[in-house]
Amino acid sequence: MDVVAQLQAALGARVDVSPAALRGARADRSGHSSSGDPLAVVHAESVADVQQTLRIAHTTSTPVVTRGAGTGLAGAANAGPGQIALSMRRMDRILEVRPDDLLAVVEPGILNADLGRDLAEQGLWWPPDPASREISTVGGNIATGAGGLLCAKYGVVRDAVLALDVVLADGRLLHLGHRSVKGVTGLDLTALMIGSEGVLGVIVGATLKVRRITPGSPCSVVAVFDGVRSAAAASATVTASGVQPAIMELMDAASLAAVHSLLGLTEPAPGAAQLTIQTDGPAAADEADRIAEMLRGAGGAVTVSHDPDEGEKLLAIRRSMHPAMAARGMTLIEDVSVPRSALAAMFDEIARIERVHGLTIPTVAHAGDGNLHPNFVFDGPDVPDVVWRAADDLFRAAIRLGGTLTGEHGIGTLKARWLADELGDDQWRLQQDIVRVFDPAGILNPGVVFAHTDAAGHTDQKDPDA
Amino acid sequence: MDVVAQLQAALGARVDVSPAALRGARADRSGHSSSGDPLAVVHAESVADVQQTLRIAHTTSTPVVTRGAGTGLAGAANAGPGQIALSMRRMDRILEVRPDDLLAVVEPGILNADLGRDLAEQGLWWPPDPASREISTVGGNIATGAGGLLCAKYGVVRDAVLALDVVLADGRLLHLGHRSVKGVTGLDLTALMIGSEGVLGVIVGATLKVRRITPGSPCSVVAVFDGVRSAAAASATVTASGVQPAIMELMDAASLAAVHSLLGLTEPAPGAAQLTIQTDGPAAADEADRIAEMLRGAGGAVTVSHDPDEGEKLLAIRRSMHPAMAARGMTLIEDVSVPRSALAAMFDEIARIERVHGLTIPTVAHAGDGNLHPNFVFDGPDVPDVVWRAADDLFRAAIRLGGTLTGEHGIGTLKARWLADELGDDQWRLQQDIVRVFDPAGILNPGVVFAHTDAAGHTDQKDPDA
Repeated sequence: MDVVAQLQAALGARVDVSPAALRGARADRSGHSSSGDPLAVVHAESVADVQQTLRIAHTTSTPVVTRGAGTGLAGAANAGPGQIALSMRRMDRILEVRPDDLLAVVEPGILNADLGRDLAEQGLWWPPDPASREISTVGGNIATGAGGLLCAKYGVVRDAVLALDVVLADGRLLHLGHRSVKGVTGLDLTALMIGSEGVLGVIVGATLKVRRITPGSPCSVVAVFDGVRSAAAASATVTASGVQPAIMELMDAASLAAVHSLLGLTEPAPGAAQLTIQTDGPAAADEADRIAEMLRGAGGAVTVSHDPDEGEKLLAIRRSMHPAMAARGMTLIEDVSVPRSALAAMFDEIARIERVHGLTIPTVAHAGDGNLHPNFVFDGPDVPDVVWRAADDLFRAAIRLGGTLTGEHGIGTLKARWLADELGDDQWRLQQDIVRVFDPAGILNPGVVFAHTDAAGHTDQKDPDA
Repeated sequence: MDVVAQLQAALGARVDVSPAALRGARADRSGHSSSGDPLAVVHAESVADVQQTLRIAHTTSTPVVTRGAGTGLAGAANAGPGQIALSMRRMDRILEVRPDDLLAVVEPGILNADLGRDLAEQGLWWPPDPASREISTVGGNIATGAGGLLCAKYGVVRDAVLALDVVLADGRLLHLGHRSVKGVTGLDLTALMIGSEGVLGVIVGATLKVRRITPGSPCSVVAVFDGVRSAAAASATVTASGVQPAIMELMDAASLAAVHSLLGLTEPAPGAAQLTIQTDGPAAADEADRIAEMLRGAGGAVTVSHDPDEGEKLLAIRRSMHPAMAARGMTLIEDVSVPRSALAAMFDEIARIERVHGLTIPTVAHAGDGNLHPNFVFDGPDVPDVVWRAADDLFRAAIRLGGTLTGEHGIGTLKARWLADELGDDQWRLQQDIVRVFDPAGILNPGVVFAHTDAAGHTDQKDPDA
């Protein structure tokens, strides 16, 4: 019996071979697709379904690509020929919310924003807030180590997960971590799973560390500067002052102009860059006023609002960045991260890369944590070579400044060829040896994160833009 | 040339074979020692020294036990016959402090409190605050995943480390992690190292996530209850209310009486248990007042202080717990952790265990995070069988309540025989396979964390109390 027949015998109608489903499983939101349809999409509805699927995949040596909502930006969940796409989207239940223990137990397929709405009814929230939160799953957020706007103040995903249930490549179920705040029993495999992009196992349940909703209303500060460098320097001043904004976003001139155009707003002054800041908690108003004063001192034209609705309107400009780029063509959204003090230097590097490669690279940054999203806009479907050359230049600049290839999107297939540059060869090999412990046959997400590279640095994977 | 001669040829006077040094390396603060002197103590003064030591250990298949200040409570750093004790204590420099990036780069041998004093001069602090902070090293804190009093509000060690430099068993140096707040490049080996107790590699450098010192003075609340159960329930009420104390400590009747006796204070009422709470930040005074009201409502006799000096005096009672126990005999300090809502139930279990085994078990708890330290006091040098039987009962109760064997002290040698009970056999074996990737020959801390256990659960290690 072939693999699909075996899956169908075991899982019935949860095995989907409709052309639309197969086609849909080929792509994420990176703009890249696999080279053809996968064998089948399995819509898992239970832990047992996942175990069954992996047992069949294991005995037939069939690769499995696990998917949440398919909103990834690194090509990590694109299933192709000969592969099973394992969709976790239907496993979307909230199993338990404990306000007394500040934890929630969920299935991986729930959308981040749906969880947020449910938690809010009990006065709780889960801090990870990727821009995709309305459309991305909690399981996907964990598997990619997704970030968001609030990380400087409220931490990254690694800080917000207590325990994970994981199905291994051979179908065995492991319970990793604890329900308690503290726990140091053995190796921290919960942390190892976070950001592992589907190569170690399938996350089938998560115990999340939640917080009480911060009392009081957020306050907002928007400041326009004459250039991105002065805006970046001003954000560094805020960080160094010790005031801790919840959100501090930076938009460069090209980004700001594109959003203004999309929203039909008055065109900003040439070169103008913007900082958008929110403070929260009991000292929100006082902190907003102090930040406003600092930004005025740094040469910004400043607007302060203590009104939350007005604040959301101010943030809407930042939140419209993705639509503004999408309106212009295909977009490769990059994701380098640098120490906060290097933010202005990284913008200098981006300006240099724009000049050298003859490109415009609209860039937004989570200035509070040093994470930049340079956007490469092009006419699809394939990423032009010049864009990959500029991206290569960008990654090397970020690493030189003490930063990293990816702050929150992950390596996927798109950045696999740069991974060893950052990790070093010894660590790169060690990481692959760890993957082999979890998945000796290499059936989980093959070619993702660790594409094979020869000694000269050439990959034997197909080009990521293929 | 034998191992010691090779070490001496390479490292000269940094190889210490004095009887005092060898004897000192046999024990930590758990009350347990190895069965005899190690071969030598290497006082590493540089990364190169560590690499050299491990190269010699690797080629001669000699086990290496890495030590910080020897303040561990689980027997993880006790070097014995045929082993090299590798002391990191002399590598105690602060290499870099960046207030603008909120990070500090340090060598592992620096004492936690020494780092704290240096950071304070720049308005910064590193949150992990184990009770041992005046005498324990940052490297040891990281290697054990040490906790402390502030974890509920300010996180655990895993949340406070950005990057680690690690020397592998064969002497190779790896750089793990990032200087940036965000970073998801490949597997998170930084997190995997935290709490790994010396079995994966030797931490030779750490990039720490530091915070600005919280503005304002802390406020304190002390509440005495008629029993430990009502004190535990009151602490759960505080957590559930959404107010977030920085510190919330619980002392049971036996602990409170022992400390009062040590300090020459008036004897507390029979059965009386105490909560000691500190609030900090801009809303400290308001939060202290709200907590005081809740605790009065829960039946507590409450004292509130907005004066920091008076607050330190109130905390001194809690901080005198270790001396109070030490004054009574040898102490085995246990370290179970449960979800916060199970705190009262765990105290019920401790009362049951006291009855069943005919023991008194003075217990303090970090009530804000659910971590309990039951103290078994006995006449030395060996832990009596009845204490191990009671401890076994304690661990099983904690796991039944959704908790863990160890919140912040680690497994070491003392708890290795219970590890598989918590992890399950599959995860226990998987973790050992991961260790083998880092250290194929098994020369790093053999017998620590993963003692070999046969199918019937019997260990072939010597008894932990031997």
